[in-house]
Amino acid sequence: MPAGESLFPADQAAFTSGERLMHDMVRPAEEAAQLLEQYCDRLPEMLNWLSQFGKDPEGGVTRLLYSVSWLEAQEALRQWMEQEGLEADFDQTGNLAGRLRGTDPSLPAVAAGSHIDTVVNGGRYDGALGVAAAALALSYLSKVYGPPKRTLIALSLCEEEGSRFPVTYWGSGSIAGLRSWEADGHHADMDGIALLDAAKRCGFGPDSSYNAPFLELQAYIELHIEQGFVLEKTGLQAGIVSAIVGQYRYEIQLQGEANHAGTTPMQWRKDAMAAAGRMIALTREAALREGDPLVATVGSLHASPGLSNVVAGSVVFTVDIRHPDDAVLQRFADELLQRFAHMADTEGVRFAAVERLRAAAVPMHDRIMRELERICRKRGLASRVMPSGAGHDAQMLSAICPTGMIFVPSRHGISHNPGEYTEPEALKNGFKILADVLYQFGYGSVDL
Amino acid sequence: MPAGESLFPADQAAFTSGERLMHDMVRPAEEAAQLLEQYCDRLPEMLNWLSQFGKDPEGGVTRLLYSVSWLEAQEALRQWMEQEGLEADFDQTGNLAGRLRGTDPSLPAVAAGSHIDTVVNGGRYDGALGVAAAALALSYLSKVYGPPKRTLIALSLCEEEGSRFPVTYWGSGSIAGLRSWEADGHHADMDGIALLDAAKRCGFGPDSSYNAPFLELQAYIELHIEQGFVLEKTGLQAGIVSAIVGQYRYEIQLQGEANHAGTTPMQWRKDAMAAAGRMIALTREAALREGDPLVATVGSLHASPGLSNVVAGSVVFTVDIRHPDDAVLQRFADELLQRFAHMADTEGVRFAAVERLRAAAVPMHDRIMRELERICRKRGLASRVMPSGAGHDAQMLSAICPTGMIFVPSRHGISHNPGEYTEPEALKNGFKILADVLYQFGYGSVDL
Repeated sequence: MPAGESLFPADQAAFTSGERLMHDMVRPAEEAAQLLEQYCDRLPEMLNWLSQFGKDPEGGVTRLLYSVSWLEAQEALRQWMEQEGLEADFDQTGNLAGRLRGTDPSLPAVAAGSHIDTVVNGGRYDGALGVAAAALALSYLSKVYGPPKRTLIALSLCEEEGSRFPVTYWGSGSIAGLRSWEADGHHADMDGIALLDAAKRCGFGPDSSYNAPFLELQAYIELHIEQGFVLEKTGLQAGIVSAIVGQYRYEIQLQGEANHAGTTPMQWRKDAMAAAGRMIALTREAALREGDPLVATVGSLHASPGLSNVVAGSVVFTVDIRHPDDAVLQRFADELLQRFAHMADTEGVRFAAVERLRAAAVPMHDRIMRELERICRKRGLASRVMPSGAGHDAQMLSAICPTGMIFVPSRHGISHNPGEYTEPEALKNGFKILADVLYQFGYGSVDL
Repeated sequence: MPAGESLFPADQAAFTSGERLMHDMVRPAEEAAQLLEQYCDRLPEMLNWLSQFGKDPEGGVTRLLYSVSWLEAQEALRQWMEQEGLEADFDQTGNLAGRLRGTDPSLPAVAAGSHIDTVVNGGRYDGALGVAAAALALSYLSKVYGPPKRTLIALSLCEEEGSRFPVTYWGSGSIAGLRSWEADGHHADMDGIALLDAAKRCGFGPDSSYNAPFLELQAYIELHIEQGFVLEKTGLQAGIVSAIVGQYRYEIQLQGEANHAGTTPMQWRKDAMAAAGRMIALTREAALREGDPLVATVGSLHASPGLSNVVAGSVVFTVDIRHPDDAVLQRFADELLQRFAHMADTEGVRFAAVERLRAAAVPMHDRIMRELERICRKRGLASRVMPSGAGHDAQMLSAICPTGMIFVPSRHGISHNPGEYTEPEALKNGFKILADVLYQFGYGSVDL
């Protein structure tokens, strides 16, 4: 959209909608504010409740897709939603949608949510926060404001992590038409069980009585922990995601010559490890020079034969590069690989870069970002616009509707680990931002 | 010894002893020269014969200490020696000595040899060449010149490689008093069998009827393949070893912080892999700057958690540094580790260097080197003085007597591998040099 074009109401218009709030409310403002605080307090309790499903002995949570603990949690959530007055049902994949039915059926729905599947021995916040907050927000909004104009939906999506099956974003991807039983149903877990078979054992699948995973959405909003420590280090209360970064991953293959470490003079070596060392050092140097928000990482390296007294004949390492702007990402990656190739050449080592992952950046919707900023300002929350370095369901759903994401701080940036933690106060801030933006979609004059 | 002092005869004196050869010979010179060529031809045949003991399906040789194939080879060698008129016997460790008895019992003996134990799936030259050449040389010398003045000994030593038991140079170390049943007999092989027990099963050991491994030696000479490609690349026919290099090996331990590769900005990382990359690159740069004969190698690296999308929390790598001069080695290692520590500091990574090996350089005897140089010149063989980057039995025996080593070219520097190969012509050159120097000790006027 052209810069300056505004689909959201300007700040003043939003205030107007804030004023309208007073008239539309089914409860007095003071009572609503008290109720909001009560719902804020319910959020950590609900996360605690959810963390009992799949609680593992190490103090973390293991809730793999289509496992007993995942199914129990998803079913308990469905019951919870019904008790709170939402219309809750599954689709074929096992995505759970809790609907707060709108009064105008001609308006497409707005959804919020995330996922409750976890990595093995994961934490209790990643994913679960977005699901619990969305469900609570709908309950809160219905209690205070009654039925919205447009339908609001709380989503609990399937297999965001890809930790049981090699199919990340299975649930959100199915909704977005980017994943399907045909293309992905055959993928097997570590025990050789196919995704489709595991789904069927839980009562899901294309032959089940559930609907196909299709939602016509006006927008999707996801509240998530940051999984980094930028907010913590900068003392901010919320992050407004500008884009989910694009990510290129390469496997760098270096073929030198394995030689005796004692008898081979330095100038005659074709040392794959020495070449790799220069490339790894360059990766960090170049990324620092490029500056934020670019990140580049060599996390894995394998040397062969891998003996202390033999010059490495071959080395394979990975380089992971991310940036929210695809053009910058492409230029940086091209330059880096070019310099790698030159280094390999000067070291007498053969070089190959095999692309292992190429995911384009997914920008969040500009108007949603501006609305989130406005809400943060209004609530007096210190926020910043920032990219998401990790992937989220929002990146799938952005293929079918405008999306927005809100980050709250993660203590020490720890994630995918029992040590994952976000302060109750921070959870509360996130909840209020999510409830506010859903209010604007459901009851305000906001449209996209 | 002060520089310039000569215990060897000067070239002219050597020529004199060469003249004396004519008088002392029991066969005419022409016949002796023919016999020498015949013995040269017998050397590859003998290596081929030896390689049948422990020949493995992959085309290499596996002859581990105290194994059936090793014992059969050692016993076959003993019989071969006796057939050639040498007095052959084992010591307690299984070292085999074939003696050509000297006429003057007051003169200490001079030995030549190497080992016939191999690595798993090794080649047919490493070690075996030095043993076969020594045995053949003694046979040749006795046939042409009769009994020498001093006893000459051909040695086949035990477990140079340390490939069955973690005790390198077991045989030569026992002779030198640097290894013993008490200190080393308990070391077990991969099946848990102790060195002492394995020896006993072969009839060796301290309670056997064999003599303790003690030899009073005047000198020890070892002919060996280079196990590098310096002679091949420089087109030379022989290497005269100046020293067996000193070797320091460190395990470098880097402790950073494992973080999400997407969500952790570059400037806040404590990236153990990035720090390692700089150190590995520096290792090669610094070694190249220092110049020959220093070599420094990072051959092994392990990163944790070792995932492409996680900043490495810890990295452990080895650095192996070698130089024939301990003072240079020490200075280089100190400087390198200091710079590593500084790099770790700037990368925010904790650093530890654990010493895993510290072997001092072992200089070869200056007068023996000069005699070998003289012989090469006289034979018209292009040679160079060079360090040995690998360890050899000579480094043990240098603790009890002057030692010298002769290298012949290894094709492509390949060793410890079925691809190990040295041209028959190169074997012949090595044999002649060894026979000549043994002649000088046994029949000439050379003394140390």
